[in-house]
Amino acid sequence: MPAYAVGHKVPDSDSICSAIALSYLKTAIGEDVRPARLGELSPETLFILDKFGLEQPELKLTFADTAGIYILDHSDRIQGPDDIDDCTVLGIIDHHKLGDITTATPLEIWVRPVGCTNTIIKMMYDFHNVEIPKNIAGAMMCAILSDTVIFKSPTCTTADIKCVEALAEIAGIEDYKALGMEMFTVKSSVQGTPVRELVMRDFKDFNMNDNLVGIGQLEVIDLALFDDMKAELHADLQAVKAEGNRHTVMLLLTDIMQEGSELLVVSDDSSIVEQAYNTKLTDGKAWLPGVMSRKKQVVPPLQNTFA
Amino acid sequence: MPAYAVGHKVPDSDSICSAIALSYLKTAIGEDVRPARLGELSPETLFILDKFGLEQPELKLTFADTAGIYILDHSDRIQGPDDIDDCTVLGIIDHHKLGDITTATPLEIWVRPVGCTNTIIKMMYDFHNVEIPKNIAGAMMCAILSDTVIFKSPTCTTADIKCVEALAEIAGIEDYKALGMEMFTVKSSVQGTPVRELVMRDFKDFNMNDNLVGIGQLEVIDLALFDDMKAELHADLQAVKAEGNRHTVMLLLTDIMQEGSELLVVSDDSSIVEQAYNTKLTDGKAWLPGVMSRKKQVVPPLQNTFA
Ligand SMILES: [Mn+2]
Ligand SMILES: [Mn+2]
Repeated sequence: MPAYAVGHKVPDSDSICSAIALSYLKTAIGEDVRPARLGELSPETLFILDKFGLEQPELKLTFADTAGIYILDHSDRIQGPDDIDDCTVLGIIDHHKLGDITTATPLEIWVRPVGCTNTIIKMMYDFHNVEIPKNIAGAMMCAILSDTVIFKSPTCTTADIKCVEALAEIAGIEDYKALGMEMFTVKSSVQGTPVRELVMRDFKDFNMNDNLVGIGQLEVIDLALFDDMKAELHADLQAVKAEGNRHTVMLLLTDIMQEGSELLVVSDDSSIVEQAYNTKLTDGKAWLPGVMSRKKQVVPPLQNTFA
Repeated sequence: MPAYAVGHKVPDSDSICSAIALSYLKTAIGEDVRPARLGELSPETLFILDKFGLEQPELKLTFADTAGIYILDHSDRIQGPDDIDDCTVLGIIDHHKLGDITTATPLEIWVRPVGCTNTIIKMMYDFHNVEIPKNIAGAMMCAILSDTVIFKSPTCTTADIKCVEALAEIAGIEDYKALGMEMFTVKSSVQGTPVRELVMRDFKDFNMNDNLVGIGQLEVIDLALFDDMKAELHADLQAVKAEGNRHTVMLLLTDIMQEGSELLVVSDDSSIVEQAYNTKLTDGKAWLPGVMSRKKQVVPPLQNTFA
C-alpha cells in the first residue's frame, strides 16, 4: 500500500511540484510515496508540467485507506484532504504559519520561514544526498519563482534565491528570470476565463477565531487586465461568501510589476478588514502598496484583528 | 531583547541539554537565544551538567515579554510555558507526535521520528556547519542515552546511535555505554526521595479527547528498588489526580534491564486503561512486558482508546 504526497486544496504550483519532487525523493530512499492532487491544475502549473515533460499527479481526495500522507505547503486541516482526521500523517513540509493539524504518532516535519516549500524539499534532497533529476529540478525552480514572485515577494529569502540558482544549473536553464516572466504571462491571461475560476484559482480558507475567512489571490503582470471585470469579480465574491457561510471573502489582485495589491472585500464586518490593513475601503476595494504576500502581509494582520 | 530556548515542564535531560545546545548554535549563527527551564532539574540532569561543567539554564516561566521562544521536546501547549498563547513561537524542535501549538506567523520546525531532540539538534549543527563544543557534545550525548535508555527503547533509531557515536568522539568519551549506566544508576537512586518528587520527576499531562491524563515515568536499573514504596506511590497518584482534576493518572515504573514497565493506575474509568494495553489491572497495577517508551508505547494506544 503506497503513501501519498499531497499539497493543499485548490493546488498551486508549489503544491503540485513539491508533491512530485517529494515522491521522487522518498521513492529514491526506499519509501513507496506517490504524488496526488486535491483539485484541478492552474494554467501556470500546466505550463510548468508541460515545459518539463512531467505528468499530472493523480487526482485523489481521500487517503484514509492509504499507508499515510505527507502534507505539503500547508498545516491547516481545512486546507488538506477532507478525511485528514482519519489519515496517518507521516510528515509535513511547509513554509507557512503552523496550523491545527495534530497527530497521534511521531512524524517528520520540515517547516522553514522561506518563500516556497520546494526550497525545503531541496534541503531534503541535500540531506539525503539524492540527485535531483533535471526535469524535477526545473519544476521545483519554477515553483519557487512562482511563490516568491520572481524574488519580489517579501517572503523571499536568500535561501530561495540560492536554491533557484542551484536548481537552474541542474535543469540547465540559463535565463531563469525570463522563464519566470514567461510563466507569469501565462498566469496573467485572465480574459475569457470564467469569473468563478479566477476567484478560485488560488483560494484558501482560514479559521480566524472561529470565523471562516476565504482569501483568493491573482498575480498578474498588469492590473489593468482586470479593469473590465472588477464588478463581476465582486459579485462572485458575494456568492462565494454566501455559499460557504463565510464571514469574509477577499480577493487580492496583485500587480507584480507595480508591487502592490488591490484588495476586493465582502464581509459581515468590513471594519475588521479596514483595521487590519489600516486602510479605508471604497466600494469594497482598497489599494495596498507593497503588499504581495497573502501569507506574510495579509493573513497575520487579519488573524490578529480577529483575535 | 533575547529569545529563549525552552523545553517542557518538569524538564528532563533532553529538554535541558537541547536548550543549552540550541542556544549555543543560534548564538553562533548570530541570533541572541538563551537557554531557560520551566522547573527544577532531576538528579540525572544535575549529574550531566556537573559532569560536563555546564551551568543550569535560567529558571523562567513566562516569555511573552521576550523576542520569542524555541519550543523543545514537545509541541503541546499544556507542556509549554503557561503564557505560550501570548508568545512568538520562533521554532519547534521535537521528536514526539504533533501537538496543538499553532502560530500566527511562519516559523522553523524540525521534527523527526527519532529517539531524542538532541539527535535533531545535531542535524541542525551539521546543517549550519557549526562545530559543537566538547562539553555540549557530551551533554547532548547523555540526553540521547537517557531518552533511548541506552538504545534499548523502541524509540531508538539508527540516527540516534550514529549521533551518540559522533558526539562521543567530539566529547572524547571512550566508553559511552559505561557513562550511560552510571547515569542510570544516579537516576535509580530513589530511596530517601519524597514520593511526590518521584511521581513528578518525569511527569507529563496530555489532553485526550478533552480528558486530562497525567503520565509519569521512572526508569531504574532494578524494579525491586520500589518494593517498599508502591503503596505510597499509589496513594500519591490519587492525590495528584484529585489536585489536578485529572481523569487518569498513571506512573510507569520502567526496569531498563528487564525491559518492561509496571504500570500504576488511578482513573475515573480503569477499563479504558485495560482496553488500551490489553491487560487486566490488579490493585491498580499491571506488568507490561517490553514497554519502555511512554511516547511510543503508552500514549498512542491510550489516545486511541479515548478517541
Ligand atoms: Mn507555497
Ligand atoms: Mn525527548
